[in-house]
Amino acid sequence: MRQRDRLRILNHMVQRFQAHFDASFAALADATRRGVLDQLARGDASITDLADRFGMTLTGMKKHVGVLESAGLVSTEKIGRVRTCRIGPCRLEEEMAWIARYRQRWDARFEALDGVIDELKRQEKARGRTKRT
Amino acid sequence: MRQRDRLRILNHMVQRFQAHFDASFAALADATRRGVLDQLARGDASITDLADRFGMTLTGMKKHVGVLESAGLVSTEKIGRVRTCRIGPCRLEEEMAWIARYRQRWDARFEALDGVIDELKRQEKARGRTKRT
Repeated sequence: MRQRDRLRILNHMVQRFQAHFDASFAALADATRRGVLDQLARGDASITDLADRFGMTLTGMKKHVGVLESAGLVSTEKIGRVRTCRIGPCRLEEEMAWIARYRQRWDARFEALDGVIDELKRQEKARGRTKRT
Repeated sequence: MRQRDRLRILNHMVQRFQAHFDASFAALADATRRGVLDQLARGDASITDLADRFGMTLTGMKKHVGVLESAGLVSTEKIGRVRTCRIGPCRLEEEMAWIARYRQRWDARFEALDGVIDELKRQEKARGRTKRT
């Protein structure tokens, strides 16, 4: 395989991964959708059940479930006239890992800043002492 | 304080919290914005620096930084003609906690399902043994 093809495949994979992240974070950016996930984590439910529970129209709830389904956070199955929703297959594993990595860098950065401030304070103190003597 | 007032204040707090979640998850739902956060976790940068690095126009980058700033993920300071961006004050702590809680319920639910399946298998086996004898 040529280098260019390899790069193209890698780029395609990165883009798919990014698109998955875009979809899952966008799906989480709504209180009703977070509520639906909370509800489904307790047990499967039909779209009618969910619409009732969240005081929404069936059409409105179908839209929210559609967004969650596109992000892989919910899967649905139609048996007869009832469409049952359950959580998954996406377990928000990578999303949590991304935030965790970001927070580690956050902490590391601010620890480094604290170190610089401590060093400046130490120098300031030493200078004060030199002045006094 | 009357019960109704108390409820109104509580409701207001819940809504503000939900709005904060909506904003932070929506801010994360874009590859460029996640890239900007990654970049700023390594060090402060001006909007011009960021626009150059991500191959964007200044106007485009300003919009992304604006979304991150509204979500509290980035703060900016203008000194002279340069607007410097840094991460924070929001550390995505609650967002990570939300996902962690959700995943715990996910696991608990599927462990419970595994338990039911194991029990069914045991019963099936026991029935097989009864038949054979």
